Amino acid sequence: MAGKVFFSVSMSLDGFIAPESVDDLMGRQWMELQRWIFPLRFFRENLKLGAGGEEGRDNDIARKTFERTGASVMGRRMFDAGEQAWPDEAPFHTPVFVVTHTKRDPWERPGATTFHFVTDGVEAALDRAREAAGDRDVRIAGGGATILQYVNAGLVDEFSVAVSPVLFGSGIRLFEGVDASRVALKPVSSESSPRVTHLTYSLHRR
Amino acid sequence: MAGKVFFSVSMSLDGFIAPESVDDLMGRQWMELQRWIFPLRFFRENLKLGAGGEEGRDNDIARKTFERTGASVMGRRMFDAGEQAWPDEAPFHTPVFVVTHTKRDPWERPGATTFHFVTDGVEAALDRAREAAGDRDVRIAGGGATILQYVNAGLVDEFSVAVSPVLFGSGIRLFEGVDASRVALKPVSSESSPRVTHLTYSLHRR
Repeated sequence: MAGKVFFSVSMSLDGFIAPESVDDLMGRQWMELQRWIFPLRFFRENLKLGAGGEEGRDNDIARKTFERTGASVMGRRMFDAGEQAWPDEAPFHTPVFVVTHTKRDPWERPGATTFHFVTDGVEAALDRAREAAGDRDVRIAGGGATILQYVNAGLVDEFSVAVSPVLFGSGIRLFEGVDASRVALKPVSSESSPRVTHLTYSLHRR
Repeated sequence: MAGKVFFSVSMSLDGFIAPESVDDLMGRQWMELQRWIFPLRFFRENLKLGAGGEEGRDNDIARKTFERTGASVMGRRMFDAGEQAWPDEAPFHTPVFVVTHTKRDPWERPGATTFHFVTDGVEAALDRAREAAGDRDVRIAGGGATILQYVNAGLVDEFSVAVSPVLFGSGIRLFEGVDASRVALKPVSSESSPRVTHLTYSLHRR
């Protein structure tokens, strides 16, 4: 049975998922957006930051998001930022398909992450990710523009946003340019911890 | 003891609280945004639509929001739209202070709603509302621009957003122009029903 196509992001209450500039990725807003993740046991394990960390529902949700993912798709902008920022052992541990205009040989990292560079469009990248994922799910990892391309193309089955208690005021909006006349949401689940609210929706065509 | 200053709005998942044009207020998006309210027993009572309607947490929350409110403040744009749309017995049943540039005598409606027109600014309107509210709370009723003026001025203690499962794509954003460098949020509560997620935060200066 084929898996689902989903995305999962942290979002400010005013709808932003990243600062305008990559240079702000260590800034106050970004840290507040992601604050719920850093203390988690799963986060520490996955980035090999050592033992310890918090368990509980936030941790279970982060771990489940990782474990359901058989392959990821990401845009070039996210890859370029990550290429500088990820540790040698990149935190995906699956095939990752990068939508780009630049041909490049697959880039294999320690820990079973291999980046494949796909130059024939978003649908081709998703097809390859589905095949690689087998019966697990495909995660559209980001960034915002790439997620939106898949949403507007009707290719996303469901998504989760972790709404963090922060206002950005500016930056990259998750749903900027969404084709609201065609995209309908159905609530799947909602769950809160002291740090964040996890909202999950399925996506449908109108 | 003085009450709090709060606002409470329904928000699309992408951060909008109203369509761009008042002409769209009967449109599909607006109806989807407000869909959680229409079936409620409290909504039917308050607008004298007859007996019946649903009870439960959504209804309790809507009723509590009404009952805590001793006076409201609203912007001129919201008043102008409402003057056409509200029934004779406007749904506030308290004093309402309209921030406007146009002097006008108080406008008394059946059912104890009186609109007062305040021409000396947002702080003056809030002062008058606090006085009228006594130990109950002051609600900044809207619209978006007026809410934001009070938020950026540091005059709002807390707020609730009912996040509805709809994407607008365009319209009036709740936090457009927020001074994110000065406004900090703390989660107060989060609660979901099948139709909507109620998120409450307190507001603080950085």
